[in-house]
Amino acid sequence: MATLYTIGLDYGTNSVRALIVNVANGAEVAGAVWNYTHGTQGVILSRDPNLARQHPADYVKGAEITIKQALAAAKKSVRGFNAGQVIGIGVDTTGSTPLPVDKNGQPIAFQKKFANHPAAMAWLWKDHTGVAEAAEITAIAKKMRPQFLAKCGGTYSSEWFWSKILRCLRVAPEVFNAAHAWVELADYVPAALTGMEHPKKFIAGVCAAGHKAMWNAKWGGYPDAQFLSKLNPKLGKLRARLTPRVHSIDRAVGGLTAAWAKKTGLPVGIPVAVGAFDAHLGAVGSGVAPGTLVKIIGTSTCDIAISPNTKKLADVPGLCGIVDGSVLPGHFGLEAGQSAVGDIFNWFVNYIQPGAPTTASASSGTSRDGARRSATHEELTEAAAKLKPGESGLLALDWNNGNRTILVDQRLTGLLLGQTLYTTPAEIYRALIEATAFGALTIINRFEEYGVKISSVVNCGGIAEKNPVVMQIYADVTGRPMKVSRSAQTCALGSAVAAAVVAGAHKDYATAQKRMTGLKPKVFKPDVKAHATYKQLYRLYRKLHDAFGTKIWKGNLFDVMKELIEIRGVVRH
Amino acid sequence: MATLYTIGLDYGTNSVRALIVNVANGAEVAGAVWNYTHGTQGVILSRDPNLARQHPADYVKGAEITIKQALAAAKKSVRGFNAGQVIGIGVDTTGSTPLPVDKNGQPIAFQKKFANHPAAMAWLWKDHTGVAEAAEITAIAKKMRPQFLAKCGGTYSSEWFWSKILRCLRVAPEVFNAAHAWVELADYVPAALTGMEHPKKFIAGVCAAGHKAMWNAKWGGYPDAQFLSKLNPKLGKLRARLTPRVHSIDRAVGGLTAAWAKKTGLPVGIPVAVGAFDAHLGAVGSGVAPGTLVKIIGTSTCDIAISPNTKKLADVPGLCGIVDGSVLPGHFGLEAGQSAVGDIFNWFVNYIQPGAPTTASASSGTSRDGARRSATHEELTEAAAKLKPGESGLLALDWNNGNRTILVDQRLTGLLLGQTLYTTPAEIYRALIEATAFGALTIINRFEEYGVKISSVVNCGGIAEKNPVVMQIYADVTGRPMKVSRSAQTCALGSAVAAAVVAGAHKDYATAQKRMTGLKPKVFKPDVKAHATYKQLYRLYRKLHDAFGTKIWKGNLFDVMKELIEIRGVVRH
Repeated sequence: MATLYTIGLDYGTNSVRALIVNVANGAEVAGAVWNYTHGTQGVILSRDPNLARQHPADYVKGAEITIKQALAAAKKSVRGFNAGQVIGIGVDTTGSTPLPVDKNGQPIAFQKKFANHPAAMAWLWKDHTGVAEAAEITAIAKKMRPQFLAKCGGTYSSEWFWSKILRCLRVAPEVFNAAHAWVELADYVPAALTGMEHPKKFIAGVCAAGHKAMWNAKWGGYPDAQFLSKLNPKLGKLRARLTPRVHSIDRAVGGLTAAWAKKTGLPVGIPVAVGAFDAHLGAVGSGVAPGTLVKIIGTSTCDIAISPNTKKLADVPGLCGIVDGSVLPGHFGLEAGQSAVGDIFNWFVNYIQPGAPTTASASSGTSRDGARRSATHEELTEAAAKLKPGESGLLALDWNNGNRTILVDQRLTGLLLGQTLYTTPAEIYRALIEATAFGALTIINRFEEYGVKISSVVNCGGIAEKNPVVMQIYADVTGRPMKVSRSAQTCALGSAVAAAVVAGAHKDYATAQKRMTGLKPKVFKPDVKAHATYKQLYRLYRKLHDAFGTKIWKGNLFDVMKELIEIRGVVRH
Repeated sequence: MATLYTIGLDYGTNSVRALIVNVANGAEVAGAVWNYTHGTQGVILSRDPNLARQHPADYVKGAEITIKQALAAAKKSVRGFNAGQVIGIGVDTTGSTPLPVDKNGQPIAFQKKFANHPAAMAWLWKDHTGVAEAAEITAIAKKMRPQFLAKCGGTYSSEWFWSKILRCLRVAPEVFNAAHAWVELADYVPAALTGMEHPKKFIAGVCAAGHKAMWNAKWGGYPDAQFLSKLNPKLGKLRARLTPRVHSIDRAVGGLTAAWAKKTGLPVGIPVAVGAFDAHLGAVGSGVAPGTLVKIIGTSTCDIAISPNTKKLADVPGLCGIVDGSVLPGHFGLEAGQSAVGDIFNWFVNYIQPGAPTTASASSGTSRDGARRSATHEELTEAAAKLKPGESGLLALDWNNGNRTILVDQRLTGLLLGQTLYTTPAEIYRALIEATAFGALTIINRFEEYGVKISSVVNCGGIAEKNPVVMQIYADVTGRPMKVSRSAQTCALGSAVAAAVVAGAHKDYATAQKRMTGLKPKVFKPDVKAHATYKQLYRLYRKLHDAFGTKIWKGNLFDVMKELIEIRGVVRH
């Protein structure tokens, strides 16, 4: 029997990737990446630092180009490969990234008059323009429908579906009125590939709907019209135009259209799985199972765990959501996350250390003529690795892009303290890494405080792949071994796993994961001494976290700088 | 009658300057600067960031070289000038910068076996190794002699005389035991020039003794032996070996020795005034008078005010000191200060933006090939000037080197908050400038809270001279006009004024100041709108200041980041 393959399509913040995977063993035989062409690295920005949009034309063009290029690459690398061996497609995307569509399911940004209107674009996950709207949704839900909030950590985020739509209604009513419905990017792409033209025929994923749009089978799907009308009567009416068909990723939304088959060379009618968020399918591609936390670490993180839906689970305050079937069928999917991780390191290098050479070939921090100069990620990482925990006396909060879990508050910002007149960029860089590790620990603790035991942490994503220093610091800070997913493309791999399941190549997800996913042999183990110091530092981090992030904390911070100096003294001695 | 001149010798952190001044009109006819040769830019450092020492050989060599060079320069620039027209010398130095000396008043660092011993050097003002000792002195004084603390702001600093000596006694007893006595740099130089070889014959200035060594005529001079013995019996014994002769700057310590006259070409026996700290003589050179605050802004600041000693004055908590006659005879001298100002800007440019070109010739922040790169002071200042108050959303504490006034606490460190993923170096640079302005306002407020009315602020020093953006921000933050001293070398000028008084060229300081000092025509006036925004920001600064800097503050900081975002939104709109 011929080898069979599936394609995972992975829509990231700056680019889209197609990955062709052997369903028998998970071998990633070929892939292609295409950078979006609109905006700055694919993101349309403005003077308002909260605004981040994408043009949907990039999504359609990206699917075509990457599928074709990946197939061509597979033909070169695999003897006898032909596109007819591809039996299914899976799709994962960023989210919540909703976009307004017309009656035919076409993005209204495709209409000439809206082609450059920022509100007609896809509202990228990290768009925070809806901060006021999120607060309003939270306040009204708190009064009318507390159960809505209980499933999404107690606070509705500006990053999510309804905040963005309500914001559009207010600042760009012409766009809202021109839209028949709004769809998540994770649902738009499978719909486009399978030709589901009317939003009401769309099959939406429970992942996006459940985590970001307060959809829950218990209360009959999306928030009721009465609640939505309280926000705005037009929002109440919109509800009826959203699809009632919401499913887990164990089913297909339809078959590939003839038009798409023709332009890509793939067989007509092969199943396209229900779409889901990159992190959720990344967790699948990393072998997520009860007891395993998967951390997808990139510009931000998503932290995914699952728990069998046969057992009652408490609502966990601060989580992005608990949704039955959002990761794997038969399990509650629990999503947490940090609003910025790699983005903080990138900010420091690109904004605060501008002009560093892009390669690491030059000797560390010194130009050829011997003068010190700005440093690259590689140089800063190398120098940071030489520092001991506590040695710099610095402590940072990882809030440059707000705090997703456990505070669910976009109106927070970064903080760095402990600077002297001798503080170096490498010390700051390490403090920023440590801050994200403290944020990660806060999330793990929150899971466990509410009965979701974490016995294993699997990391994936660019930083987990490329930066052993970050992984070691995470192990030392959390006091837990850090495992790394075998695949460098777990999200795309997870999509390919979903495609394999809906195409019938494996009987269920457990089998498909066993065959197609795995871990790297290297495990980062915590150093006892480093962990002891980090325990002291984490106590101070938590004090800052609570002092700036909560209303209930009362006290002063008189000891924070002094204890850092104390720890620095002990470590340096 | 021939024109008469005096020489002001000004010992800074990195160099010494000699300035030749016409006593009739304050014209600065010639000068010379010599950089110390020991350590890094004249400062001996170690791995301990608290340590900062200087080699006394630099002091002696510096006097000779700069006097000779200044005289040579005067001969070139003033027709008919000859060294015989110089009628006196004044000396100002950094402080508290004590050094151990032998029975003959010679620095023990001049002995071969101590030539490289860090404890045998001068303990530079910014040496903070005596933090624990300062805390102990404060604690014991609080119990035994609360009056000692009342005159120095309530807390004895690690920067001061006794903390350093006690520290030396503990970590380098071999140095302490080899020393006959300890003298302040401000007293050492006049003594060396006039040949007072035994410490007991030294005339010490009341400025250093009163502000840094708890000397007060009311309690019989230096702290009593019982108190000092409580710290360490050897300290109690040291007291008897310190000079009992402590005076204001209206008298001379003696006449220039034949040896010094010979090597410099100056007349033998011309009077050398009692030495004082640079800031105090800088205040004299800026025309200090009751109601006028003089800010000497350099790497750190000293803020000097005076109040007639005929009127009772309350003790002001947090001030570096209130000492009768320490600035001008007949007045209480009040000294406050910020531990780092220019040093913070230098840290940011030299450490965090390394490798920027040293000239401002390149276009702002962009190298010739168009790539962004690290920025210089000039570029950052230019970019910072374009920002509106509150526009960055940033807020900083100016504590990278601790806090001198009003907290008197070295165990504090820098803080920056409000960072997003788009925060730029120019925004941070401006936030650091603003932080020092908030620190300056806190000092002005403290003076006025205790009845010392400030009706005029005169700035001097490198930053006041060179950076109109900083001056404008100070005006906008404080809501007060910022005046700038006419002289670019007010400390050296003040020393020359002192020399003119002790040489009898003017009948008193008021007359000498009127003739020899003045202001620049440009006054920086506060902008009403900017001041209104800064009032909001200062409230938040003060909240951070009190939360991290005091034990008595109770609350949370939940609103700080949110209000900054709010203000940013209003300003950008």
